[in-house]
Amino acid sequence: MPSAHLQTYAQRAQKHANPAAKALLETIERKKSNLCVSVDVTKQADFLRIIDVVGPYICLVKTHIDIIEDFDPSLIDRLRELSEKHDFLIFEDRKFADIGNTVALQYSSGVYKIASWSHITNAHPVPGPGIISGLASVGRPLGRGLLLLAEMSSKGNLATGAYTAEAVHMARTHRDFVVGFIAMRRMESVPTPDASVVDEDEDFLVLTPGVGLDVKGDAMGQQYRTPREVVFESGCDVIIVGRGIYGKGSDAEVQAQAERYRKEGWAAYEDRIST
Amino acid sequence: MPSAHLQTYAQRAQKHANPAAKALLETIERKKSNLCVSVDVTKQADFLRIIDVVGPYICLVKTHIDIIEDFDPSLIDRLRELSEKHDFLIFEDRKFADIGNTVALQYSSGVYKIASWSHITNAHPVPGPGIISGLASVGRPLGRGLLLLAEMSSKGNLATGAYTAEAVHMARTHRDFVVGFIAMRRMESVPTPDASVVDEDEDFLVLTPGVGLDVKGDAMGQQYRTPREVVFESGCDVIIVGRGIYGKGSDAEVQAQAERYRKEGWAAYEDRIST
Repeated sequence: MPSAHLQTYAQRAQKHANPAAKALLETIERKKSNLCVSVDVTKQADFLRIIDVVGPYICLVKTHIDIIEDFDPSLIDRLRELSEKHDFLIFEDRKFADIGNTVALQYSSGVYKIASWSHITNAHPVPGPGIISGLASVGRPLGRGLLLLAEMSSKGNLATGAYTAEAVHMARTHRDFVVGFIAMRRMESVPTPDASVVDEDEDFLVLTPGVGLDVKGDAMGQQYRTPREVVFESGCDVIIVGRGIYGKGSDAEVQAQAERYRKEGWAAYEDRIST
Repeated sequence: MPSAHLQTYAQRAQKHANPAAKALLETIERKKSNLCVSVDVTKQADFLRIIDVVGPYICLVKTHIDIIEDFDPSLIDRLRELSEKHDFLIFEDRKFADIGNTVALQYSSGVYKIASWSHITNAHPVPGPGIISGLASVGRPLGRGLLLLAEMSSKGNLATGAYTAEAVHMARTHRDFVVGFIAMRRMESVPTPDASVVDEDEDFLVLTPGVGLDVKGDAMGQQYRTPREVVFESGCDVIIVGRGIYGKGSDAEVQAQAERYRKEGWAAYEDRIST
């Protein structure tokens, strides 16, 4: 069996045991889109408007629900309606980073009740495996999936070397809930201290932030690569684009950018599987 | 000048340039308490009741505002009233862990507006120095202080070795806003790749979680040490105690536990400065 990233999304969907990962792969195939839009705005109205505009072009919307100033629980209902209308999944980019007991509460409870609506969420591996157990105790019964932050796109980040290897090892020992990584490249070749956890057919999804076609970085250390670099050269599965799409002004322009990134990401994928 | 942890809290308060760190050191001295209580409950009423009970015995309350199910903005007003009534500071244990642009929004905006009421907050160094710049752009003008998570108390955590050294280096290069660490020991001896950033008189506060007198761990990987181990042996400045205090049933018992931990922490400090 060829490495996961040389198979089609449809082939991978058929084999994936986690319901959230399976649904994401099916959505990607159905919509011919490996584009995730990150919507980092602080008003409900902007949030919903942008998602409604980009919805047809994306497989996944990435949210920071905790930056929305006028949040109220009805926003979640409207987000879900858009997710059904346009056929995309939801990824709350919470970057959980606490001990198991705390993240279980942050994921299930509070104002946001993230586990009840976010198909996929993510966590930093730095607290150790307890963070996965804590989140899994809430998310597994709901059919959710978790991404571990194995690498980051920001300048001077510490998710490198042994840290990345530990993240991959933690994922390999929690395959029932960890469905992939936030990373800049594929992780199959990352060595694991315990060879017994390696599965030849492992298929972790790789979602990659820091994707942009027009700029190389921001003033706070974010760095950008193109969809082709990310999907074709580095073998990543989903490109995450934020300000490059929604920062462009009119709805028509936002829509045009979303279609532009969708096309670029998909072409890079088609070239990848045909090599 | 002796190392910071061999000076009194009062001496250190006089010299500290950051308003939040100065206020915390003054509060510790005034109340003879280096105890921070972590209140991890999911109902407003429990949250406020516990804080009102432990308030007289603490220098700092540590919150996870995002686990409170029935949160509304008036809760912040009541938390502030308790902070004035009982003379303690507030530390939202948000563990920021994203790129600079995102954490600036998470800190200033959203439902919680953390920067507007939390004297101290914390961040993981993993995203790189941009996380400090992002948070400082919001918190410095308000006189807030930031703790970096240089170490953690949970089993199998990755905040060790080179990771910890990078955290300390990031703190040393951002002294105007980073006031200390979440760590298990003092950090003065951690080597820095660039010696020019070392200040002989550096005084980073060390706040230490995983403190308990009666148990050694939980089912999700948290591990506990005693106040004496933490303050006397490891030279830490503030002990953070959670379920060991508020998990004890009646208000009278919670109060008794708070006083018990305050006494233990303070005695360990007095022994430390008299050595």
